[in-house]
Amino acid sequence: MDLAQLIENGMDGIEATGLLMNIMWTMIAAFLVYFMQAGFACCEAGFTRAKNSGNILMKNMMDFVLGSLFFFVIGFALMHGDDIGGIIGGKGFFNPTKLAGADGLFNGLPIGVFIIFHTVFCATAATIVSGSMAERTKFLAYLAYSAAISIFIYPITGHWIWGGGWLSEMGFHDFAGSTAVHMVGGVCALVGAKILGPRIGKYGKDGKAKAIPGHNLPLAALGVFILWFCWFGFNCGSTTAATTSLGDIAVTTNLAAAAATLMAMIVTWVRYGKPDVSMTFNGALAGLVAITAGCDTVSPFAAIIIGAIAGVVVVFSTTFIDQRLKIDDPVGAISVHGVCGAMGTILTGVFSDDYSVLTQTLGVAATLVYVLIAAFIVFKLIDVTIGLRASEEEEKEGLDLHEHGSSAYADFNFRL
Amino acid sequence: MDLAQLIENGMDGIEATGLLMNIMWTMIAAFLVYFMQAGFACCEAGFTRAKNSGNILMKNMMDFVLGSLFFFVIGFALMHGDDIGGIIGGKGFFNPTKLAGADGLFNGLPIGVFIIFHTVFCATAATIVSGSMAERTKFLAYLAYSAAISIFIYPITGHWIWGGGWLSEMGFHDFAGSTAVHMVGGVCALVGAKILGPRIGKYGKDGKAKAIPGHNLPLAALGVFILWFCWFGFNCGSTTAATTSLGDIAVTTNLAAAAATLMAMIVTWVRYGKPDVSMTFNGALAGLVAITAGCDTVSPFAAIIIGAIAGVVVVFSTTFIDQRLKIDDPVGAISVHGVCGAMGTILTGVFSDDYSVLTQTLGVAATLVYVLIAAFIVFKLIDVTIGLRASEEEEKEGLDLHEHGSSAYADFNFRL
Amino acid sequence: MDLAQLIENGMDGIEATGLLMNIMWTMIAAFLVYFMQAGFACCEAGFTRAKNSGNILMKNMMDFVLGSLFFFVIGFALMHGDDIGGIIGGKGFFNPTKLAGADGLFNGLPIGVFIIFHTVFCATAATIVSGSMAERTKFLAYLAYSAAISIFIYPITGHWIWGGGWLSEMGFHDFAGSTAVHMVGGVCALVGAKILGPRIGKYGKDGKAKAIPGHNLPLAALGVFILWFCWFGFNCGSTTAATTSLGDIAVTTNLAAAAATLMAMIVTWVRYGKPDVSMTFNGALAGLVAITAGCDTVSPFAAIIIGAIAGVVVVFSTTFIDQRLKIDDPVGAISVHGVCGAMGTILTGVFSDDYSVLTQTLGVAATLVYVLIAAFIVFKLIDVTIGLRASEEEEKEGLDLHEHGSSAYADFNFRL
Repeated sequence: MDLAQLIENGMDGIEATGLLMNIMWTMIAAFLVYFMQAGFACCEAGFTRAKNSGNILMKNMMDFVLGSLFFFVIGFALMHGDDIGGIIGGKGFFNPTKLAGADGLFNGLPIGVFIIFHTVFCATAATIVSGSMAERTKFLAYLAYSAAISIFIYPITGHWIWGGGWLSEMGFHDFAGSTAVHMVGGVCALVGAKILGPRIGKYGKDGKAKAIPGHNLPLAALGVFILWFCWFGFNCGSTTAATTSLGDIAVTTNLAAAAATLMAMIVTWVRYGKPDVSMTFNGALAGLVAITAGCDTVSPFAAIIIGAIAGVVVVFSTTFIDQRLKIDDPVGAISVHGVCGAMGTILTGVFSDDYSVLTQTLGVAATLVYVLIAAFIVFKLIDVTIGLRASEEEEKEGLDLHEHGSSAYADFNFRL
Repeated sequence: MDLAQLIENGMDGIEATGLLMNIMWTMIAAFLVYFMQAGFACCEAGFTRAKNSGNILMKNMMDFVLGSLFFFVIGFALMHGDDIGGIIGGKGFFNPTKLAGADGLFNGLPIGVFIIFHTVFCATAATIVSGSMAERTKFLAYLAYSAAISIFIYPITGHWIWGGGWLSEMGFHDFAGSTAVHMVGGVCALVGAKILGPRIGKYGKDGKAKAIPGHNLPLAALGVFILWFCWFGFNCGSTTAATTSLGDIAVTTNLAAAAATLMAMIVTWVRYGKPDVSMTFNGALAGLVAITAGCDTVSPFAAIIIGAIAGVVVVFSTTFIDQRLKIDDPVGAISVHGVCGAMGTILTGVFSDDYSVLTQTLGVAATLVYVLIAAFIVFKLIDVTIGLRASEEEEKEGLDLHEHGSSAYADFNFRL
Repeated sequence: MDLAQLIENGMDGIEATGLLMNIMWTMIAAFLVYFMQAGFACCEAGFTRAKNSGNILMKNMMDFVLGSLFFFVIGFALMHGDDIGGIIGGKGFFNPTKLAGADGLFNGLPIGVFIIFHTVFCATAATIVSGSMAERTKFLAYLAYSAAISIFIYPITGHWIWGGGWLSEMGFHDFAGSTAVHMVGGVCALVGAKILGPRIGKYGKDGKAKAIPGHNLPLAALGVFILWFCWFGFNCGSTTAATTSLGDIAVTTNLAAAAATLMAMIVTWVRYGKPDVSMTFNGALAGLVAITAGCDTVSPFAAIIIGAIAGVVVVFSTTFIDQRLKIDDPVGAISVHGVCGAMGTILTGVFSDDYSVLTQTLGVAATLVYVLIAAFIVFKLIDVTIGLRASEEEEKEGLDLHEHGSSAYADFNFRL
């Protein structure tokens, strides 16, 4: 029904106008958040090796595919169905459209709008993980994980934070998902990469980490530009309404990303003598992740500070995970999404007058503990049953050849 | 005129609000549908060989360029001008803006909005064909075809279906163009590829089809992600209005695409022992094409079924066309757009209570017959005059070198 | 505040509706204009050599990063702060959000909306320059220039044209920035490329120009498709309001781009015997730049003529600059943005009844003179202090290796 039809059906003019404007805005945001899939795919393929490009693209695609299907039939109900004890939702399985009221609305929006919006957010969390587990994970095993995150890992903390669960009741503030989306993805990435072990050749006999450079930086850079673009939808769209604050949210989002990129560049320049391309682009993502929780509530200057901190932290965190923890994260997703997601959520408590650092920290901690445990169980179960890791031969000759029988660059010679 | 100005000019507040919201939504959709050109270009370049990349990109670009110009001066009038006997439109040639009423509106929208929206749809049909005729079609010949589809092939069936012609009078339902756009493009692709004959080396002396792999799967995959993104505009935008149903349309669109991708992957996995990258990504497009006709009217579960069928059909259809019919379709566009477009339109009659399978089938059949004949005449005429096919030398050494005097990857060595 | 809240706060229903619609439209436009960064990055990387890809991507990214930060703290105030003598703005330094009235609005929009919109426009001007100075500019020197354009070069002429300065007072019309954005960028590019001198090997001992082909035409072509897509936001969004004219603006924009592409193709075909890929795609950009000034005021047919002229001019201008002036512009940005920007602005006076050719020409000339002088001073200062040009060794072996210690295509061999 368009505006004239809504009013004919008896709806008040202002109410109908507001409804349709909110629908439009939320739909545009959903489209943009969907398009993050392209950004992640480009980033993850570009930052890894040519011999595994087809495989990583398939994993990215299947994250969204399985996420769309499983979140529809199960995840949405767990996240947004009627609350059970603040812990999970419990209604709407198999057909979440039934959750709508007699007017077709759910949380003030037509149920379809609400479903597509939350589907693309869920799939964002899912797709973060493929990068950290790239170049060595068996394809079938990855599909099993990808189903699990969309079925229950993401929806349960999603319920706590956004579905009316205990964290939202406590006043925990995670506006667009620094924790609910990014940290959840980042923690799964951490657990997966840790259990999986490093790629062959990543650590020398002396235990020293060796850089394994990505095969296509223009592709990766394009991915970051796409993600930044879509992040405007991610953050500004999380109002799920046309409001006067959209510009303010875009300003904080943009300034944080800019500050983070600049700081990541400077830190690598000072530390390594040259401004590092990959890390600078990862710095942009770190800033975007960090500002996501508080983009609606902090000032532009706080945003610059949050971004700047993220840009510094992401460099040191990546090095620490790579060289000290010896966890091989090919794209740095654990630092970008996990560490900066947690940090940004807590800093929201620091820089906003409306939210408490304690509650923010508690929310981060609770989510962290839950996801660590859930992801650990999932990955261990997969490892014991399907087996998580590709064979040595597959890894050396490339997952594209062995898992998919193809080459991503059939006309070119490239190093394995 | 903005809202205040419209009201100052005497328009009713609600009417003016509705008009501006519908304009905004239709414009956003038009932008996204334009961006499908990027998706097609990436797909078609990525799924073909490096030596022909510049050429296919030029064809994609010129499809849109010629489509924009010819649809403006001729096609639009044939499609949307005053109806003549249900068969063609017949007013507005050379300056379609004159079709607007005294209030500047046409079909409830400012004529400019309506023109840009239909221009980008027309260009989508045009650009489907370049992939199927890739790597062996003379550039000038391709330009001639591209003009023809925008001048009269697409606009005439477009008139039948969307311009007030006989099919729309009969109750044929093709919401966003499974038939009007995709099948029209797919049938032209079939005729063109058949007349053109296979690429050199595609079929062995024993007649067996050989796979000619694409040269850049990340580029092709990015193309599919872009197309999926833009398809939200394609389908949700075909309301040409801000309505409460936008979310529902996005949900069916997305579920169908997801189901199709999953099924295509599973079918190739079962048949060939490995999940095929190219076919899985083509599965996504197949699902999107199939749901396009009925995305506004079928339930989410029907969408999943339609998508799943498309995902299976596209694999078998591609093999059948490739190996039995021995029609060489480098990107699989005949199956994706032609077969799944027809199928999705008919399945709309199966799964929706509001539309009849018979009418849907009749509409598909009539469009099929018309486009087969029209495209046959066009391609034969081009073949006899300009010559459709590049020389053997040009094909072997690459169309980029011979047609454009350049290489798409000047710094790299690649196989011819 | 959403619609209901605005009305609760006492705002009139129509006024609140108009405000929120204008906000939505301006935000969407801002997102799209941001995404032009991706288009420029793809174009500039694709049209230059593989050995410098990481470097050009970094320059593109840092243009936006420095632009975002410096325009926020300084540039915005110079451009939009209270006018001083028609020459500069002079209020809002360090925190431009303070320029908002008591109602939070500035020029009829919430200040955040206005800031993000103008930030992405400023960054577009900045990023034009990197292409022309590609493959030989020291990274640190480039950063210094990039800061300068965002701090004062762009904002000052921006104030004249869009900030209430003397040119806007005179009736100079540059709707979306053929002059304010594109010509400013193009003139900086001219000055930078001239002072920098040509790339090693660009001109033979006989002084003849040699073509140095781009390394990745699919990437460059994707960039052009992205830019065309985003240009709809650039031009239609420059209403900064939901209006009935959005479709008309999109139609003129699109027709001009199509005509320009077609003419650039034809001219190269006639001149060189083959339709040139790079020049055809640059033709599209030339048309888009040229129509930007008058897209809201010229007729569709005038748009076709303006575009067609731009498509011809860009070919001859590029050759002239390359072969006669012997200024080495790797991507042709001086012609595309500078020459066609100036031309399109002046042609707006020719084809629109509402604006005067004289005023248009005066505005172009004044902007040209100012930017020539300002850019000359900036680049000379940088050259004397930091040094503008990379060393011969760096240039020969690639800026990626020397400036960033990395390769953009680590798994591939490519020519230096």
